[in-house]
Amino acid sequence: MPDNLTYKILRDHLVDGDLVPGTDITVRPDQILIEDATGTMAGMQFEELGIDSIRVPLAVMYVDHNVLQIDDKNMQDHRYLRTFCERYGLRYSPAGHGISHYIHLERFVRPGQLLIGADSHTSTAGAAGMFATGAGGLEVAVAMGGYGFDFPCPRVIGVELVGKLRNAVEPKDIVLEILRRYGVRGGRGAVFEFYGEALDDLAIAARATIANMIIETGATTAVFPSDHQTRAWLNQQNREADYQPFAADPEANYDERICIDLSTLVPLVAVPHSPGNVVPVSELPDTPISQVCVGSSVNSSYEDLATVAAALKGHLVHPRVQMTVTPGSRQVLRTIVESGVYQDLMQSGARLLEPVCGPCVGIGQAPLQGAASLRTFNRNFPGRSGTAEDQVYLCSPSTAAASALTGRITDPSTREPIELRPAALPDTRIHDALITASLPSHTRATIVVERGPNLVAPVIPDPLSDDFTGRILINVGDDISTGDMAPDGAIAMSVWSNISLCAQFMFNRLDPNFHDRAVEWGGGIIIGGDNYGQGSSREHAALIPMYLGIRVIAARSYARIHRRNLIAVGVVPLVLPLGAPDPEIGQEWTIVGLRDAILNGEDKVNVDVSGQSGQLTINIDLTDGERGILAAGGLLAYIREGGRTPITTG
Amino acid sequence: MPDNLTYKILRDHLVDGDLVPGTDITVRPDQILIEDATGTMAGMQFEELGIDSIRVPLAVMYVDHNVLQIDDKNMQDHRYLRTFCERYGLRYSPAGHGISHYIHLERFVRPGQLLIGADSHTSTAGAAGMFATGAGGLEVAVAMGGYGFDFPCPRVIGVELVGKLRNAVEPKDIVLEILRRYGVRGGRGAVFEFYGEALDDLAIAARATIANMIIETGATTAVFPSDHQTRAWLNQQNREADYQPFAADPEANYDERICIDLSTLVPLVAVPHSPGNVVPVSELPDTPISQVCVGSSVNSSYEDLATVAAALKGHLVHPRVQMTVTPGSRQVLRTIVESGVYQDLMQSGARLLEPVCGPCVGIGQAPLQGAASLRTFNRNFPGRSGTAEDQVYLCSPSTAAASALTGRITDPSTREPIELRPAALPDTRIHDALITASLPSHTRATIVVERGPNLVAPVIPDPLSDDFTGRILINVGDDISTGDMAPDGAIAMSVWSNISLCAQFMFNRLDPNFHDRAVEWGGGIIIGGDNYGQGSSREHAALIPMYLGIRVIAARSYARIHRRNLIAVGVVPLVLPLGAPDPEIGQEWTIVGLRDAILNGEDKVNVDVSGQSGQLTINIDLTDGERGILAAGGLLAYIREGGRTPITTG
Repeated sequence: MPDNLTYKILRDHLVDGDLVPGTDITVRPDQILIEDATGTMAGMQFEELGIDSIRVPLAVMYVDHNVLQIDDKNMQDHRYLRTFCERYGLRYSPAGHGISHYIHLERFVRPGQLLIGADSHTSTAGAAGMFATGAGGLEVAVAMGGYGFDFPCPRVIGVELVGKLRNAVEPKDIVLEILRRYGVRGGRGAVFEFYGEALDDLAIAARATIANMIIETGATTAVFPSDHQTRAWLNQQNREADYQPFAADPEANYDERICIDLSTLVPLVAVPHSPGNVVPVSELPDTPISQVCVGSSVNSSYEDLATVAAALKGHLVHPRVQMTVTPGSRQVLRTIVESGVYQDLMQSGARLLEPVCGPCVGIGQAPLQGAASLRTFNRNFPGRSGTAEDQVYLCSPSTAAASALTGRITDPSTREPIELRPAALPDTRIHDALITASLPSHTRATIVVERGPNLVAPVIPDPLSDDFTGRILINVGDDISTGDMAPDGAIAMSVWSNISLCAQFMFNRLDPNFHDRAVEWGGGIIIGGDNYGQGSSREHAALIPMYLGIRVIAARSYARIHRRNLIAVGVVPLVLPLGAPDPEIGQEWTIVGLRDAILNGEDKVNVDVSGQSGQLTINIDLTDGERGILAAGGLLAYIREGGRTPITTG
Repeated sequence: MPDNLTYKILRDHLVDGDLVPGTDITVRPDQILIEDATGTMAGMQFEELGIDSIRVPLAVMYVDHNVLQIDDKNMQDHRYLRTFCERYGLRYSPAGHGISHYIHLERFVRPGQLLIGADSHTSTAGAAGMFATGAGGLEVAVAMGGYGFDFPCPRVIGVELVGKLRNAVEPKDIVLEILRRYGVRGGRGAVFEFYGEALDDLAIAARATIANMIIETGATTAVFPSDHQTRAWLNQQNREADYQPFAADPEANYDERICIDLSTLVPLVAVPHSPGNVVPVSELPDTPISQVCVGSSVNSSYEDLATVAAALKGHLVHPRVQMTVTPGSRQVLRTIVESGVYQDLMQSGARLLEPVCGPCVGIGQAPLQGAASLRTFNRNFPGRSGTAEDQVYLCSPSTAAASALTGRITDPSTREPIELRPAALPDTRIHDALITASLPSHTRATIVVERGPNLVAPVIPDPLSDDFTGRILINVGDDISTGDMAPDGAIAMSVWSNISLCAQFMFNRLDPNFHDRAVEWGGGIIIGGDNYGQGSSREHAALIPMYLGIRVIAARSYARIHRRNLIAVGVVPLVLPLGAPDPEIGQEWTIVGLRDAILNGEDKVNVDVSGQSGQLTINIDLTDGERGILAAGGLLAYIREGGRTPITTG
């Protein structure tokens, strides 16, 4: 049977299971990507495995999130991560060197390979013919330890791109169009695989924009073929040898097919507070803005920044607008400097920030409350900008630039076409010099991993108890993101290496008393809506409930990564059936025989509800592997019990 | 009688008083400089004056401190400051445009003029033949309102510079040598006025380094003659017309004279925790470093950064060292980019930060606790870096660069001489375009000043009561800086527009219970040592005690600006006589007739001390004007009572 490209790559890396959508498969990753925000927990959990070295061909740690250093904690993290990398054989990319996804694209992507990353936007590498997906820190640590990576086999949506983008319509508008069609849940369980004539003109940076932000549909990842554009990119990076062509077999099957005619697209914008709230810019009411931010792990390539610079050149940013520009990497920074793009931006009044995640995760540049902030980023979940009651809009670089000049959200297709400055050739030596090589194994043993007082390893939970009793702590709505559980922002993220401190921020936006109530009640149950835990892969969103004694969550449905994170740390994600009544806060639930129900493969469990006669029936939707992990008390305990054996060594 | 240059300028601006050291004089400022950290309070206090417009020829507001935006507060400040400037006729330099002192040097200094700034390092402008000094925000607001500026006439120390600096010895080492000789108290009441053959080779940027950091001796300011170097600087800035030669009269008098032979100087370093703890680099024990920071309001000129770049070019920063570089302004940023200096720094692994104050005030890049951080900045007071228990060393750019390569504090004179890249010509249009012009007066009235909820005007205190009773709240040591009262750092400074929030940080480093005790006791008395309130001009250090009900402080001696700030906000700075016993915390003091003693010009007052027989006698050292201000309840109340009349209008 002809394979689509997704299944070709998965088949090449399949260790266990069959390529049947929705069933568990185990794959062997070639590469691991970690960043500092998720990396300190992932590192400390890796150390719990008792392994002397990573057991994958390549693992890279990028310090790109917590780099403002508003107090001494960030630098403790960096010190830990550097020595961790030296000790266990990872490569280390220091603060200020660039955003993980962009550097990985430049220096490490290899068509046909499989990448697992402790960051949801790891999917970016799909731009270069890889299968690349994000996961929680513990699952990544375990994969890095040679145990492979387990996940539900995705279905594959074939996306044919035809036609040509019109003036001022950009690759960002393609992925916004997909979000307009699918929303933030429609892609769950799926890989978006791209093909079609329009790919000829879509360079790797353009594809990366789509692959990065595809994750906002809930998808597992996006995959692009490896073709002449991939070769051109790798050639520019002096990595000709890493090129191999890859594409779907002719007449390949897809579970679903869509077609997007690029010539019909218009500039789009995602309005607050969801990347799925997409409308044409031209249909927005008059929207004055106080801030424009360009860059982040999407739209921080040379082409993106050159587009903005060309629009700004010779003009000044509107005086009531603060504008920032963030290049994707030190390589991009050098390229825009050599090309004159940097100078155009600077002369126009834009603030040039370091090549780090920065404002995209609210680490700096938190906007005014209630005032529109227009950003080329990938998420506008409430509060992610670092400001409570923010109003963040997502758009393309062209839309951002046009709006920066007028002071209101502006359709760039109403303006004159622009001409980019020719790009200087990238200097790839910058990265090769500054990303620390992995040490030879005989010297690793001499390295002392420096774990400062800010770094506290998460506790490993007890095995699941036979029965469970707890009170309903909170009842949240649909599409609650992990950013509401472990919030973004310079202040909240500075404590991500210590779960007891993180815990104080959980659900703060929704209910400032949540943390204290959970402590007072000694844990309890969280009730979630649909797509519970969308967004970032941050495992903290699962480690905090576990730390607070919350061993059961009951939601209508879950986002992929967060669901797996809950299981990995020993928290049971039960599924509320359609039509189940809405539980009240304080209600006590008793689930007799929870452990047995999980271990015995049952798909339902009964709940005694305080003050109510009769029982509530709740669904258990878990694979066999997941049931074992939960019963053991999480993935680390499961591995210690021998539930998994390494599939690769040294 | 032949005048020194200091007295020449003061005489030209004298409105009241005689040029007799230590006596009060009133001068008419030509220019006002304000920055955002002190500017929100200064602005709100200016608004209390009920004046429709500034009454000085030029006032410039620079947003250079609170620009990380770790939550929404910073941007509220910016919005307030911009609309305040539009409303009242100030020019406005937005976030990211540069550091106040450096931009002022580029675009606004005028030889022979008088500048008052709400920032202690306003003295920097003394490099270009100005009399420029820092003051508290309220005094600056009042000066901006046309009431002139009152201060004690300084004595003048003539500093003759002879000889030539040797390889790798820099202007920073000249001012460190002065600090080695004078310490942090020796310059109090004095202006350091420079002359001598060595000035021929000292460009304005070099003089600015000295004039900036001279303030750490406790001095009022530094003054350099306006000469061929001044003309060259102004020519480069397309400001030929602003040049006038100025120098001391031949045979001018000085209260004291010193001579520094530059050829005898060696690279120096100020060790923790005082800029006065100066030793030769060669005499330091082996000191590994974790961080190097270049830039700030000193050492952020083209020459400084080019020196660092030349030393780093072709090498990599030591892998265990994080290095940042901060240009002084957008103009410098452009110049280093055009010259290739930026590229050399970037390729070596240095992190290029925005042209803002940044790590110098702990707004970002807080170092590791207990690990040495080497900085080209001007202060290393404990905790100023944003890290409790920091270890900050101050040095020249050459020392910083040599050390960044070796990973330990290194004498740069032991290394090969370096050759700077030739400087590109500055582009002065950058500033002229981006610093908002003051609006014409007829349109100002239409501007609504936007005061967000983060901005809370300080209360205006009641008149001083006849008697005073209060308990001793704390007893601190010598040389306590205003940074211990209103701490630096991204977190603590983000609340500088609201005194009730600032108050929670007061003396935190020395006694975490201070704030709560002051609230519980309803105010009280602070006991200080020598040089109480050294360092920054931040008026918050006086507004917080006033807010907490602390109307009396008794210290051995005071730093100039803080003493005036206490008086301006109605807090009485009494002077503990030599040999006075050390009061204990909790002891209650009753001062019967305090108000009368102050109003009647008495120089002593008696204190009844709880549990002790006999009385303690404490000194009152105040000028007549200061006595009137204190009795009224501070400067604003004094002005409202008609205690001062404007000396300039519109």
